[in-house]
Amino acid sequence: MISKTPTPPYYAVIFSIVRAKVDEHEYEAMGARMFEMAMQQDGFLGLEYSPEDPSGFSLSVSYWRDEDCIRRWKQNVEHLVAQKLGKEKWYPSYSIRVARVERAYGT
Amino acid sequence: MISKTPTPPYYAVIFSIVRAKVDEHEYEAMGARMFEMAMQQDGFLGLEYSPEDPSGFSLSVSYWRDEDCIRRWKQNVEHLVAQKLGKEKWYPSYSIRVARVERAYGT
Repeated sequence: MISKTPTPPYYAVIFSIVRAKVDEHEYEAMGARMFEMAMQQDGFLGLEYSPEDPSGFSLSVSYWRDEDCIRRWKQNVEHLVAQKLGKEKWYPSYSIRVARVERAYGT
Repeated sequence: MISKTPTPPYYAVIFSIVRAKVDEHEYEAMGARMFEMAMQQDGFLGLEYSPEDPSGFSLSVSYWRDEDCIRRWKQNVEHLVAQKLGKEKWYPSYSIRVARVERAYGT
């Protein structure tokens, strides 16, 4: 579950959401589809995700080679549809932070 | 649960762990103590955390004004004890990534 990322620098997109518990099936299907598509994007390095807490809050972080990869994924047509649904229906509150990983350590 | 952070730039520390399910009480008490202490550090901007999945994996992200604040917190004496316990007993696998948040958006 911990992504094997290369030596920095690379980029992280920190996605913090509070989710409305509606359209569970549609939401899960869309999440799975977006993950499948993200993995195929040029420059995708990994995704870490941990479950929702009882309030619907969860955190996920995707890793990318550079900012251009992030921009291209953001503009992907199918992903744009998912973003629109997220804003309109699924996420009463969310935050996306794009960050440059400068150093990393661990096991 | 979503931290109200200032306009970028600022820093994020992405902490990805797989936890061994030992010393539950000691671990929880230490976690609570570290959170309480981190909040009091100069330059601390927020902490986001989501629960463990069944494998013990979880993700948390703390936000900081600058790298000096992160270094000072890393060197805090009580925090050093927690780091040692983490490495020796609690985290079979972990990753810490220090990243500069360059842009942010959301609700």
